[in-house]
Parts: sequence; structure tokens; C-alpha cells
Amino acid sequence: MIQNVSECIRTRRSTRLFAKKELPRELVEQVVEAGRYAPSGGNNQSTHFLVIRDRGVLDRLAKMAEEAFAAMEETPEMYKSLRNSVRASKKGGYVFHYNAPVLIVTANQKNYGNNIADCACALENMMIMANDLDLGSCWINQLRWLNEEPALVKALQELGMTEEERVYGALALGYAATEDGQPNRNPLPRTGNPVDWIG
Amino acid sequence: MIQNVSECIRTRRSTRLFAKKELPRELVEQVVEAGRYAPSGGNNQSTHFLVIRDRGVLDRLAKMAEEAFAAMEETPEMYKSLRNSVRASKKGGYVFHYNAPVLIVTANQKNYGNNIADCACALENMMIMANDLDLGSCWINQLRWLNEEPALVKALQELGMTEEERVYGALALGYAATEDGQPNRNPLPRTGNPVDWIG
Repeated sequence: MIQNVSECIRTRRSTRLFAKKELPRELVEQVVEAGRYAPSGGNNQSTHFLVIRDRGVLDRLAKMAEEAFAAMEETPEMYKSLRNSVRASKKGGYVFHYNAPVLIVTANQKNYGNNIADCACALENMMIMANDLDLGSCWINQLRWLNEEPALVKALQELGMTEEERVYGALALGYAATEDGQPNRNPLPRTGNPVDWIG
Repeated sequence: MIQNVSECIRTRRSTRLFAKKELPRELVEQVVEAGRYAPSGGNNQSTHFLVIRDRGVLDRLAKMAEEAFAAMEETPEMYKSLRNSVRASKKGGYVFHYNAPVLIVTANQKNYGNNIADCACALENMMIMANDLDLGSCWINQLRWLNEEPALVKALQELGMTEEERVYGALALGYAATEDGQPNRNPLPRTGNPVDWIG
């Protein structure tokens, strides 16, 4: 489908509706490997990938996140997307990972100044690779917002996260639930990022 | 050179030695456009690209950063790369952007929770695009470490950065100073990022 690198970068969009169809491990591995090749501060290479495909674990994490958000109070200065999570959780039935068949959690050292940036580079690589493989993906921030929530920290530590690590992003991954099975590649409605040329 | 998306991601390496050769604006535009197509939190699209190609401006920024680093005291818990910048600046002759012909600074809203992550995604896109175009690039963190330094904030505001914005990363870009002119694509000595599979 994808012709080249430029097209793959330009047609990457978020997928939020996933087909109930398992993903072959081989495809997931290709996505994770792309993430592992992302640069890191001082070549630190400490981004820790938790590749979760167990339905029971995914359901449990969704429930725990919903409970944590439901217990929060909305504030006026709250980040818009976080407020949406809080509201949806109070109503009930909120699933932060869109019931994707795979959730790739990126953790990193909590006392490392490049933790967010390194995880973001890995996530971006994985989103581009997913698009190249005709898979849908979406950046997931909820486990980062809750990355000091004791119950979730404990649950993630049981999955392999170390005591020195915290979550700085995640990726929902799967086949898009579209008619042709292809991920959302609608052209961006706008490209709002400003650019200034100096020289 | 590059065959496909996967190869482009895997062969991206940092270039720290640039040829003294101007980069056609058209190539720089392709790199910046790749950055503008990066995802952003809630589709915020507030990453602000300052594309600096003016030699005088680049030299001035290098001088200002060197002065700021030279005035810092080393501490034991200091981030390794920052410590290297401080040491090199005290010696004198430190140029944080490796004298690349182009420096693309990514700024974002300082009161926006996804500022670092959004800039990192844009930078990763630009690094991949640069590799595809046979250009060398390197993530530059120094202006982020100094992003509350009054003199540098003022200088960047004169270049277009707004009062609400701060720098969260930058990219040095140019032709690599190698025999064949191609960027560093040596295979990674190790892929240290750990992966855990759950399910």
C-alpha cells in the first residue's frame, strides 16, 4: 500500500476502532523492533516495552484505570483529554485502550531526564511502522497520567516493570475496524503547526 | 539508497560531523513537513518549528549556550550529557549544534502537558525523513536544558518563539562529512531496550 517513507509519515493517522481479530505475533514484533531502534539520550536505551496481548490483563488494566479516573475531581485547568477520561469513567464503561488486541506500554527510568522524549520517539517509530504494515494504532496517554497510581504501578510491576520505572506512553495496536480493513489514512483536516524560517 | 520504511527506521543513526555545504531549502522543507505530520495530544498541533539557516544566528546561539553552560556548576547527580556540555563549555570552543548548516528548533506551549512528547514525535519524524533523503541529523537537547535561560529565551523570541512557548528539543541537519557523503548508517552496536511479552 505505502509507496515510500514520506507517504508513510504523511498518511499516519490515529485509529480508535479496532477489529476483533488477533494480530500475528510476527507483525507485533516488527512494530516493537521499530520502536527499539529509536534514538535515546546519550544512547541510554532504557525504554522498556511491555507488549500486552492477554485479554484478561487488558480488561483488568482498563477497569483499574476507569476506577482511578472516576475517583478524580475535574478542575478547570485540567488537560482536556484527561478531563474527557474522568467524565467517561464516572459514567462507566470507559476503556482507555479502545479494546485493541495489543497494548504496547513504554516505561522508562523515573529519574532519567529524557524518559518522556525517548518513549515518544519509540512510539512514533512504532506508529509509522504500523502504518507501513497496514495496521491501525493510537497513542495512549492514560497510563502516563496515572503513572503514580499505586494499584496500577503494582499491576505493571507484576507484568515486568521495575521499581525504578514509570510509564511515559503507550500504543494501542490492531487491525482497523474499517470496511477494507485498512487503517485510517484520511488526509489531515489541517496542518496547524507553525513554521518560521530564519535564513 | 533506502529500500523501505523498516530499513529507514533501522538505519537511522546520529550524525555529529557535518560537511560545510549548504542544504537546498527544498530538502529542508521535506524534513520539516515530515515533522509537521507528527501526531499531537488531542490533535493540538502546537509544535512550533524555527528553521535556522542563518550562519550568524547559529554562531550567536552557540556562543550564548556556551556562556550559559560555562556559568553552571557540575553536580554529582547531573545528567551525563549535560555535564559534558558544562565541561566542554568551561574549556571553551563548545558548539552545541556541531556547526550543522541547519538547526530546526521545536518549541511548544510551556503550560501544555504533551509539549515534550509532541516535539519528540516531530523530531523523530524529521530524523527518519532526513535518513531517507540521505541527510545526516542529530537530536539536540542543549536548548531544552537551557530553556529558561533569559538571554536565550529572548534571542529565540526575536526569532519567532512566543512568550507562552519554550524549547523542548532541536535537530541538527546537514550533509554528513563522510567519504561518500552518506549519513552514518553503521549497525547499532547493541539493542539494549528490554521487551516483555504478556500473552
